Amino acid sequence: MKYSFRNDYSELGHPALLEALLQASNEQNKGYGMDRHSENAKKLIKQKLETEDCDIHFVTGGTQANATIISYILRPFEAVLACSTAHINVYETGAIEATGHKVVTEEGVDGKLRPIDIEHALKAHYDEHMVKIGMVYISQSTELGTIYSYDEMKAIYNYCREHQLYLFIDGARLSSALAASDISLNMFKDLCDCFYIGGTKTGFLSGEAIVLFNDRLKPYFRHHIKNKGALLAKGYVVAIQFERAFQDDLYSTIGYHMNDLARFLTNELKDLNVPFFSESSTNQIFPIFSKEVVESLSELYDFEVWEEVPGGLAIRFVTSWATTKESCQELIEDIKKIMN
Amino acid sequence: MKYSFRNDYSELGHPALLEALLQASNEQNKGYGMDRHSENAKKLIKQKLETEDCDIHFVTGGTQANATIISYILRPFEAVLACSTAHINVYETGAIEATGHKVVTEEGVDGKLRPIDIEHALKAHYDEHMVKIGMVYISQSTELGTIYSYDEMKAIYNYCREHQLYLFIDGARLSSALAASDISLNMFKDLCDCFYIGGTKTGFLSGEAIVLFNDRLKPYFRHHIKNKGALLAKGYVVAIQFERAFQDDLYSTIGYHMNDLARFLTNELKDLNVPFFSESSTNQIFPIFSKEVVESLSELYDFEVWEEVPGGLAIRFVTSWATTKESCQELIEDIKKIMN
Amino acid sequence: MKYSFRNDYSELGHPALLEALLQASNEQNKGYGMDRHSENAKKLIKQKLETEDCDIHFVTGGTQANATIISYILRPFEAVLACSTAHINVYETGAIEATGHKVVTEEGVDGKLRPIDIEHALKAHYDEHMVKIGMVYISQSTELGTIYSYDEMKAIYNYCREHQLYLFIDGARLSSALAASDISLNMFKDLCDCFYIGGTKTGFLSGEAIVLFNDRLKPYFRHHIKNKGALLAKGYVVAIQFERAFQDDLYSTIGYHMNDLARFLTNELKDLNVPFFSESSTNQIFPIFSKEVVESLSELYDFEVWEEVPGGLAIRFVTSWATTKESCQELIEDIKKIMN
Amino acid sequence: MKYSFRNDYSELGHPALLEALLQASNEQNKGYGMDRHSENAKKLIKQKLETEDCDIHFVTGGTQANATIISYILRPFEAVLACSTAHINVYETGAIEATGHKVVTEEGVDGKLRPIDIEHALKAHYDEHMVKIGMVYISQSTELGTIYSYDEMKAIYNYCREHQLYLFIDGARLSSALAASDISLNMFKDLCDCFYIGGTKTGFLSGEAIVLFNDRLKPYFRHHIKNKGALLAKGYVVAIQFERAFQDDLYSTIGYHMNDLARFLTNELKDLNVPFFSESSTNQIFPIFSKEVVESLSELYDFEVWEEVPGGLAIRFVTSWATTKESCQELIEDIKKIMN
Repeated sequence: MKYSFRNDYSELGHPALLEALLQASNEQNKGYGMDRHSENAKKLIKQKLETEDCDIHFVTGGTQANATIISYILRPFEAVLACSTAHINVYETGAIEATGHKVVTEEGVDGKLRPIDIEHALKAHYDEHMVKIGMVYISQSTELGTIYSYDEMKAIYNYCREHQLYLFIDGARLSSALAASDISLNMFKDLCDCFYIGGTKTGFLSGEAIVLFNDRLKPYFRHHIKNKGALLAKGYVVAIQFERAFQDDLYSTIGYHMNDLARFLTNELKDLNVPFFSESSTNQIFPIFSKEVVESLSELYDFEVWEEVPGGLAIRFVTSWATTKESCQELIEDIKKIMN
Repeated sequence: MKYSFRNDYSELGHPALLEALLQASNEQNKGYGMDRHSENAKKLIKQKLETEDCDIHFVTGGTQANATIISYILRPFEAVLACSTAHINVYETGAIEATGHKVVTEEGVDGKLRPIDIEHALKAHYDEHMVKIGMVYISQSTELGTIYSYDEMKAIYNYCREHQLYLFIDGARLSSALAASDISLNMFKDLCDCFYIGGTKTGFLSGEAIVLFNDRLKPYFRHHIKNKGALLAKGYVVAIQFERAFQDDLYSTIGYHMNDLARFLTNELKDLNVPFFSESSTNQIFPIFSKEVVESLSELYDFEVWEEVPGGLAIRFVTSWATTKESCQELIEDIKKIMN
Repeated sequence: MKYSFRNDYSELGHPALLEALLQASNEQNKGYGMDRHSENAKKLIKQKLETEDCDIHFVTGGTQANATIISYILRPFEAVLACSTAHINVYETGAIEATGHKVVTEEGVDGKLRPIDIEHALKAHYDEHMVKIGMVYISQSTELGTIYSYDEMKAIYNYCREHQLYLFIDGARLSSALAASDISLNMFKDLCDCFYIGGTKTGFLSGEAIVLFNDRLKPYFRHHIKNKGALLAKGYVVAIQFERAFQDDLYSTIGYHMNDLARFLTNELKDLNVPFFSESSTNQIFPIFSKEVVESLSELYDFEVWEEVPGGLAIRFVTSWATTKESCQELIEDIKKIMN
Repeated sequence: MKYSFRNDYSELGHPALLEALLQASNEQNKGYGMDRHSENAKKLIKQKLETEDCDIHFVTGGTQANATIISYILRPFEAVLACSTAHINVYETGAIEATGHKVVTEEGVDGKLRPIDIEHALKAHYDEHMVKIGMVYISQSTELGTIYSYDEMKAIYNYCREHQLYLFIDGARLSSALAASDISLNMFKDLCDCFYIGGTKTGFLSGEAIVLFNDRLKPYFRHHIKNKGALLAKGYVVAIQFERAFQDDLYSTIGYHMNDLARFLTNELKDLNVPFFSESSTNQIFPIFSKEVVESLSELYDFEVWEEVPGGLAIRFVTSWATTKESCQELIEDIKKIMN
């Protein structure tokens, strides 16, 4: 196998993050996130968010972050609305339902919900025999590599506020989304009630930062994290990585790097007239090849087969902080050879 | 503050484990524990367990391991029986109940359950208006630093098997227990249905290894881990540390180190006629001092105040992989000064 | 308002059932279903089922029966597969998800699942990142008034057994289904793992009889009923009604009565060229009228507006044990007047 | 068997309640509690409560009422505090934990909690590693037949309000408590956030009325009832019985009847120097007899053996709406014969 484009968590950790961890190896730190690194990491993140008025908590994985946040927000009889392609609907083995809540879905477009989709769901859930929709979940970037523009996200949040729905943004791949969209970190405070900043898919050993803007979501959140088994004894391990990633522009720089290589692959493939399953501008791209090409390619590279489509198979290439231009060039060369 | 004896997770990671991680920093590994390090770590652990006939899974924390295992084992109407001092009863913010199960408790002795305690609980839960006790949870070492002897644990397991109860051992501090008890790793296969080998409190960044002996506990366990939000994307980060800790005797060596220093402290304090809250032979010790001594000591050292007792306060000192003989000697000297 | 065709639970109770209750009003009976009426009712039901090899339990409502059964069958990481129109998916306010389980849906045809639908769902849930489908839920009759034929149900059960899926049949409206289908009560033991016999919608004050054929579903079921808050103190109140309904053919007779009147309405409406939303052969029918007709009709009769469809509104008429031919004739006369 | 003193739900229903049901047998009523009887029953109950400012909902059983209310009130990381003898702790097969919440217990005195008990529990749950106590559960009358006086209950409620704890009173045996205590129905609005008025143990076929005073407990409660599988299709069956029981003083009259007979038994037994397990003033009494006496008595009467105590066995006699003076006299005569 020459190289894996299967995902963005195939490589241990970005050298700068590992270096930051090593520098702390002789320290003693308080447990459960009460340490100075956690404090400092939160301060640095708040600077990028351009607000002091939020609570930040560190956990270790995306499904954990989603289940913890959603089960905190919802009342027992409430459901979360998500796009049918959403991670919480498809890829979390019922982790949200395990906390007692239905995931209501709408088809949406390109992996994204629109206000009209939310309205459709609200209308279909009109009395006490149906779950009450209590919040909306969206992903930035989405599971199809697409992104919400500022206007799209603002429209959703406005709709949510008018209808007493909380809006939560899954930022598992936020670094890539930030590099691709017109939404920067300082805008999130006006675009949602809470979101999380993904570390695992941006070169962290593990780690996600939950950011809570809405005051109603703040009390006793640490109790809830512990209740969900997600309060890390060595919280400072995650905090040190966020501290490093946000002390300069490292977090967004990694996003630009991943997107640049994904765009290179996209452009090269489009030059080869390869069609795409979705219009991604981030680090996940979904070219469509014939089954024969996919089979040949799979002998050289590791990647995910996404879905059978008319004309063959949509596959997924993901670029990571560690992916090199050389690997991408080699991939393109090999694809050219196989397609000829 | 001179030094913290508050817990055994105050320091990032043992140098040998960090070194093992760094050596893997240029690799690409499969996600979600399907990588070669996970495979090799399991092989090495199985060698110490002296059995091939078990399933091993890596997760990141103790509460997570407990909630995942217990909710896998129990039917909805079943409860877990534990000592009233048990971690799952007191210190997990209802994480077990959050999965739907009652924690039934018995007082036990010295933080330990005996067959007679289990029998008492079974007799009190005799019909369908009470929860059915489906499993027993014990900790090795216990929350009071005590340990089960081989005979004690064997008696419990025999009782459990006779009464169709699963036995699960919480090994958050197993390295210390191994170094103190007459139960070695190769005996566990005959002493329980499942247990976990704690990494976080033995110098890991994070990580616990769940070991399932009973065949009935094996199918679809990975589904369940994911359902509980505990399936780590970079599973190899934990696996690499277990691989290193079990490729030689590092795991148990750390246990001996911690216990040696705890025994040094205990002996010195007993020479000073300091009484103890429990008879610990592991890395947590619970000396009792007057409130005045505790107050003075707390200006120099960090530690946990455990419980108010007749004659003052029981406090807890914990030694870790990183604790030095010098720190312990200094602590004793300072205590001598304060007590005079 | 002349009459309500809104549902089949608008009238207190069938006179024969009330009479049976009154006859027991001077008795003392054991609580929680341990009484002689419960015993006798089970015996009578087993006679109709033509098997001794099943466990029977009485509860008070359909959602309660569904949530109790499904949460007993499934492991935490498992989901139930249902038609998208299924009661458990739409009309139970997330009661299934409240027990921790996802409801996976397929479109199906006419409110019914086919083996091909189950196969589609199984293929879409292929690894540990997705819920494991553990059982299939179908309704007889369905939420659209349609019924499974013997061959259709047998095909589903065969498919389920080949794929280790439990099959559960929701019989909220079983009396009507029995009267319309080629499946009689004595066939159920070969057609599913468990089902429930609905009383509430067949003239009972309340009451459903859960029937468990599969031995794996029998142990500790009473514990589970209590755990779900569904173990009735005066279990004999429900039992007495089942005893009466099954001592002769009362249960099925009520079904024939309801279906006869529904068929009368259907035939009359078809003579008027009224189209239907579904091809019902049971006591729920779904004619389609223009909005104007529906509005005029709603001033005289109570019924449910089901769904906006091309050409107007599908509404639902339900006949009950208490519905009379005269009421139906009057309804038809009024519809004729309104439509002219 | 001459007579059963086992419980107060051995007899179908009080004649006046049955009569009220029969009178409605030719009506058509709206489903799910939206009917005129539900409306009227609520009006009549509110008159006795002397407030309009409460929401009332009807369900069918005590465990169901408890689980529904408690799971509505608590956040996921919160627990309910109860006396160790509480019904929710011992006799509900983990129904509260099944909704995700720990039941924290204190010993209390005579089956009752005092402010000092609540304070003790709060002090023991001081940080995010322990559940947060969010509410207090008490029973009136208690599981030992004792009752809270007005002053005792007021002291508890004051303590709860000062510490942001909700107070919920389980009124499964409220009619008996009302007849024995200095707390009448019109006082409850100032003594708790919510309670339920038990029907099943006061001669109803089934039925409990949940009363919510605190405005924070009102929104979407019907959604929650349905989510818990407790929304009865024929809600009017329960409502009609409450309508009848509260149109005059029937509800409290039944309580006086039961207490009178229990007091008769108590006085007679005290004359025989029979000791008691608790000082009950309600319809459950707990005399202590030697094992031989209990054995002989059990051949003539049905009752519950409560607990082994020094000197023999505490047994429980319960009087019901249907118990007669003659049965009680006969019981006493038989006891006299057995004891001589």
